[in-house]
Parts: sequence; C-alpha cells; structure tokens
Amino acid sequence: MRFEEDLIERIRPDAALVAKVSSTTISLMALIRDMAMAHHEVVDVRLVGSVAKETYVGRPDIDVFILFLKETPRSTLEKIGLGIGREVLPLYEERYAEHPYIHGTFDSFEVDIVPCYHIDDPSQLISAVDRTPFHTKYVLDHLLSEQRDQVRLLKQFLKGTRAYGAEARVQGFSGYLSELLIIKFKTFRKVLEASSRWNFGTKVTMTNGPSAKFPSPLVFIDPVDETRNVASALSVEQFAKFVYASQEFLASPDERFFFPLERSDMGQDAIKRYFDQTGFKVVIVSSPRPTGIDDNIYPQTRKTMEGIRTVLEQGDFHVLDKNFEIGRETRMAFLLMTNEVSQCHKHVGPPVWMDNSDVFLDRWRGHCVGEPYIEGGRWVALIRRNHTGAHDLLVKEMAKASIGSSFKGMEFSVIPHEQVISGGYESVLTELLDKRLPWTI
Amino acid sequence: MRFEEDLIERIRPDAALVAKVSSTTISLMALIRDMAMAHHEVVDVRLVGSVAKETYVGRPDIDVFILFLKETPRSTLEKIGLGIGREVLPLYEERYAEHPYIHGTFDSFEVDIVPCYHIDDPSQLISAVDRTPFHTKYVLDHLLSEQRDQVRLLKQFLKGTRAYGAEARVQGFSGYLSELLIIKFKTFRKVLEASSRWNFGTKVTMTNGPSAKFPSPLVFIDPVDETRNVASALSVEQFAKFVYASQEFLASPDERFFFPLERSDMGQDAIKRYFDQTGFKVVIVSSPRPTGIDDNIYPQTRKTMEGIRTVLEQGDFHVLDKNFEIGRETRMAFLLMTNEVSQCHKHVGPPVWMDNSDVFLDRWRGHCVGEPYIEGGRWVALIRRNHTGAHDLLVKEMAKASIGSSFKGMEFSVIPHEQVISGGYESVLTELLDKRLPWTI
Repeated sequence: MRFEEDLIERIRPDAALVAKVSSTTISLMALIRDMAMAHHEVVDVRLVGSVAKETYVGRPDIDVFILFLKETPRSTLEKIGLGIGREVLPLYEERYAEHPYIHGTFDSFEVDIVPCYHIDDPSQLISAVDRTPFHTKYVLDHLLSEQRDQVRLLKQFLKGTRAYGAEARVQGFSGYLSELLIIKFKTFRKVLEASSRWNFGTKVTMTNGPSAKFPSPLVFIDPVDETRNVASALSVEQFAKFVYASQEFLASPDERFFFPLERSDMGQDAIKRYFDQTGFKVVIVSSPRPTGIDDNIYPQTRKTMEGIRTVLEQGDFHVLDKNFEIGRETRMAFLLMTNEVSQCHKHVGPPVWMDNSDVFLDRWRGHCVGEPYIEGGRWVALIRRNHTGAHDLLVKEMAKASIGSSFKGMEFSVIPHEQVISGGYESVLTELLDKRLPWTI
Repeated sequence: MRFEEDLIERIRPDAALVAKVSSTTISLMALIRDMAMAHHEVVDVRLVGSVAKETYVGRPDIDVFILFLKETPRSTLEKIGLGIGREVLPLYEERYAEHPYIHGTFDSFEVDIVPCYHIDDPSQLISAVDRTPFHTKYVLDHLLSEQRDQVRLLKQFLKGTRAYGAEARVQGFSGYLSELLIIKFKTFRKVLEASSRWNFGTKVTMTNGPSAKFPSPLVFIDPVDETRNVASALSVEQFAKFVYASQEFLASPDERFFFPLERSDMGQDAIKRYFDQTGFKVVIVSSPRPTGIDDNIYPQTRKTMEGIRTVLEQGDFHVLDKNFEIGRETRMAFLLMTNEVSQCHKHVGPPVWMDNSDVFLDRWRGHCVGEPYIEGGRWVALIRRNHTGAHDLLVKEMAKASIGSSFKGMEFSVIPHEQVISGGYESVLTELLDKRLPWTI
C-alpha cells in the first residue's frame, strides 16, 4: 500500500541516526562490559529494548542490563550495578521502580543501566526486570526483519492516538506488546483488522495450553511467562479508544492517526460557552505536586480523585466527569450537574420491624425536619445538610476523603466554579471538556 | 386492666343501640326472607358481617346475603337478588365490586343486600362473595362471647391508627382479620404483643399443614380456605405502622391510639416554613375525579402517580415523596429535591466494542453538545434537555406517562410550585408534608 509505504519512509530512522545509534551503543556497551566483567558476580552485559530489537521510532533510549549470578545478595547487585552506571554516565539520576537503576545521558542519548539477576527461566524471577532479557530474546527470535517496519507503523499509530506506553500516566500499550501483536498478526493492517473486532476481555496468545484468568480488557499471555498478561496495564479507556481508532482508520486511513495536530487550550470564550450551554458547574481541588515518580503519583492522584468524588456524591453532587493535570501543582477537576443542592436531604433508615430501628429513631428524633416517618415500611428522616454548596462541602469535608498516601498531610485548595472559569485553569479545563479524539483535532 | 376496661365501656355499643340493631335486623331479615324464599332458586337468607358476629363498633352496617342454588344462572341470581334489594330498601344504589349488590338504608342503618351462591365448600366458590357466609360461621364457631370486646378494642385501635379497612383507599386490616387475630391470640393485648415483634413476611395460621407462599408483609392463612391470605390487601406501609403502633402502645398505653385528635390542615405559614427550611419543591397534577368506585379509583390513581413519577425521574427530577387526594378533583402531589435542572444531561451509551455502537453514534453525532466521547469504554453524549423545569416537563410530556385506565383521555392540569404554595392546596399538602402518626397529633 502506497499510503503505508510512504508512512514507513517517514517513520523509519534514517541512515545517519541508525549509524549514530550503532556507534554509540557499541562504545557504551564496551565501556560497561569492561567494568562489569571485572566482577565475578556478573554473568553478562546485555543490550535490550528497542535498540536491540531494531524497532525504535524516533530517537531511542538505549537500555543496557547487567546480569548477576542468582546468588548475589541484592545489596551487592545494587552496589556494583548502580556504581557502574554512575561511572559510565556523565549525567545521571538514580531511579527506582520496583528495582533501582541508573538513568542518564550518553553521547546525547537517553540511557538506562539496569542491574538484574541472570535466571534460567522467567518462572524463577527474583526481580520484575529479570524478565526483560527474555522478552528481547523472544522478539529477536520471532520477529522477521521485514516486520520491523510494521512494528514502527503500529508504534507510531499508538503514539499518534496517545495510547503508547504502559506507564501509569498513559495506561496504554508497551513496546513489547506492539512487537508481540505484529508477531501474532504479521502486519500493522492485520493487527488493526483484528483489534477492530475486539471485545472487552479478548484473549490473544502465542502459546497453547491453559492460562490464568485476567480481569483486563485485553489479555495477551506473555509467551515467555504464561502466568503474566502483557496487556495488564491497559485501561478500558485506552482499550476502547484503540478498538475505535482501528475501525476508523480502516474505514478511512489518514496520517492524522499517526501525526495528529496539537490540541490547543480552550479559550475563555469557548469555556464560558460550554458552561452556558450545558448549565454544568466545575470545581477544582489543587495541591502541591507530590514527590516521587510518575508511576507512583498518577495512581495516587486517581485514588485521591475517587475519594473526593465519593465525598461529593455523598453530598448529593452528581459528578459527571473528572480529570486532572499534574504540573507544578496537581489540579483535580470535577464536572458537576449542579454545585448547589437543597438544604435538606432524605435519609432512608431501617425497616420499622428491624430491631435496630430504635437506634435510628434515637439518633434523629428532634434532630431532623419534622420527625422521622414511615415510607415503604422504612423509617425516613429529612435531614438538614451541613453544606449546600460543592465548594463549601469540599473545604470542610475534604479531610473525610480517602486519599492516596502521597497526598497525606498536604494542603488542598478548593477553587469554586466562578473562579475556575474566570481564568488560569484553561489547561486542565481543556483536559476535562475537550473530548475530541486525537485524530479528529 | 382498668385502662382497657374503661375503653371497652366507651366502645361497646350501649343497650339502646343493641336493641335498635336487633329489632331492625329482625324486621329486615323477615322482609327479605319472605320475598326471597318464594323463589325456588333461593336456598337461604343469611345475616353475616359484624352484626351477625356481634363485633361491631359504633353504628354498624347490616349485611344480608341471599344464597342461591349453585345451578342458578348468574343473570337470574342478579335479577332476583338485586330485585329484592331494590324493593326492600327505600333508598338504594346498585354497587358492583367483582359482583353486583344493593347498598341502601333501612330504618336509618346502612344495609348491603348481596346475592351469592350457596356452595358446600369455599374451595368451590363461584363468586368471591360466596366465601363470606363461611367467614361468619367460622367466627361464630370460634370466637368466645367474652372475646367480642377484645375484637372491639382491636378494631377501635385500628380505626384510631387509621389502619382499619381492607378497601383500596386504606389498604389496612379487615374486620374478619381483626376477629381472626383475637381468635388466634385470645386478647387485644396479646395481639399487640405478637404484632410488636412481627417482621415483614410474618405468617400466622389457625390450621396446620402446608400453604402457598404469599409476597405480602403479613400472611394470615384463611382458616376456611388455605389458598387465601386474609391479609393480602395490607400494604407494607400499614403493616409497618401497625407494628410500630403496637410497640408504642405497649410502651405507653394512651387513649390517643383509639381516639386520635383530628389532623387540621397546615396553614400557609407552616407550608412556607417547610419549603424554606428544606429547599424542596412541589408540583401537583390534577384531573377531574374519575367515575367509578373507590376500590377502582384508588389503585388507578396510584398507578397514574407511578407513571408520572417515572416521567419526572427520567427528566432527572428526584421525587422525594408523593401523595394524593381524591375529592371533586384528583390531586396528585410530588415532592421534589429541585424543580430546575441543568440544560444538558449525560447520556451513557453502549461500550465502544459493541456492534450496535454505530447506532448510538449515528443518532447523536451533530446532535449533542460537542461530540460523543468515550468514558469507561462506553460512548457518552451530552444531550440538551427538552425541558429544564418540572412543570414544563409535565405539561409537555404528560402524554408519555403510563396512566391508569380510568384516567385515559382526561385533561390534566399541572400546577407549579409557586402557585401550589400560594394557597388553595393546603389539604393535599398536609397529606404530603404532615408526617405525624395519628396518635402523635
């Protein structure tokens, strides 16, 4: 297909970049190998990731793993592995996921130097990263060289549709999953023909035999470890978007799926028009940015938003939508049907014939509007609310929200509707209100 | 107990009334018997009901049944039976429940003259009223004469707590059920000791052996027909109130349970205060009074109110409570959390991966605020409402409500909050808002 061939031309790294990546990788590997092999605990130094697999799109990260004997104490592994990283990379930072590693730059490339255990079989893994060399080997063994361009097409499609990356910020498709999809379905187009028909819970495997049940929208059994779902990080949101993007692309292929236009922030006029048209309201809770890595902050922010949503819903504020932005501060925006509710609410208690109905009566008699009464066989009380406004509710009851541990002890500010729409919150409002899919911008 | 003895003195019909009831009944029975026994289809004329059982409280109705041979055609039974009724009663009207009968007055007593079939066993009944003579016989055979006062106490307690009567207007306890409760539990107080511990679904029987399941709050198997629940007309509302009244009476006996104060209509000030305090709103739908008997109109009105409630809830108006009044017109009042909602609502469609998601997109693309978007894997559209006010909604969409057949083709008027509270609706508003139990007034 002319269209796809043209795209491949555009995406495929040019000869100069390939040469530069190769030479840089060779020098870096040599340096690390020299230092690492001097330690009797080190078994091997292995190039992994998209450079090893030649499936990168754009300027790649270079990922080097230092493999240690299984018997090496973790502290020794870290001391030696991180020590080498620090020495080799002129600019570095120590990062820690489940496992510490060194991230830095070398000859203008981003580099990860990761110590791991050398295991015989992925079922014996000691740290989660121990599996990576097996993934690299599997792809090298099974991906045909002419399929590398197909992987690149798929990765660029995922990037363009904002679904690339298994990290918590994206909750999308990893590079390894992209490669497995091409190995399984052969070409980019065939992947999309399959995914356009996926249902929630669709299962894809390279292997035969039974496998565990996973509660994920997509299940791709890891061919190097049958107990693992390669697509476990994929959110239902990203899954649905990918299914729809596949359908849309097949119906009318367009380079905007690969190279979308930038979404610009909504202007004040558009924001005002939205709220005038809908009658909806918005409230924002902001806090300082928690310390830590994105893979921790994003889930913590989502958990915190759920907690705040519960407080709002318990106060009878119907949350229509929510979104957040993590910049210098964390801004969590809640779209509400209304931000003012009646002074009272109806509190439905136990059936009259239940033993504990006394407790309800004792609690509410003399403390509700009128007296408790019977409705449908149950006691009911009309209770005066503490807060009739969403802003007041959050200012006073925020402490009751179940929040992520990274947010414990933080100062939260609550910004009411009028202040939010009067300016300064265009970016997070755009996240919340501009629902266009990337390729339709 | 002094308290109960005093009450019995007060409730028990005095000698003059008893004498008057007896003499009237004797003359009435003689008249009917003379006419009826001239027809070879008539087997017997039977005094039934509370006069026959001597369990009446206040001025009783006199109920006379004319029993026909099973083989009599229904038309003959009606012709002869109703003919006698018309002849005997100077003032009468023809009434029709499942079965036609004559209601009128005789010597200043209300009288029902009811033709029915003479059957050997209640399992063979041809018309629902055929069972009544068996009920009367059962009570006469099983109620001790000293228990008649206990029945009177219970009936007066049920009247005072507004739970007496199995008709659709009340959905409470029939006279027969009151009598059976005394036969079962011996005294008024023991009935209350039992009922104060009843749970939803409590089953009471006089007989042994298996019986059908009934989905009622109280099941009292009819001792003359095991397939029938004597308490089938009892609503969960009345059941719960009776359980609670029993508990309250036992905790502190008071004549207000038997002779409550009249509930007076709320004044304008109290009504205004209620709505100011709660922030709730009200809307009333009124129509002419449908023709027919109460036992038909009341269920039809309840059905109509359910239909209107559904329309309100579909328009996102949360109905907190509802009540109605049937006078010269039918007034159905709905208590609302609010009577104005946002211009738009969020319409959640099918999951993106469902085959029918196209239909949703075709329907809403270009016809919603922004475009349909994906949330939680589903398509969602923000849709402009046709009506943001409860009054407007009902004026325009009342035709969509599922209404009782008696209301078909009727003109409905919708009275908005401001007009309702400005006067003229005190009576139905009192029904809706004054939740005090009768003995607490």
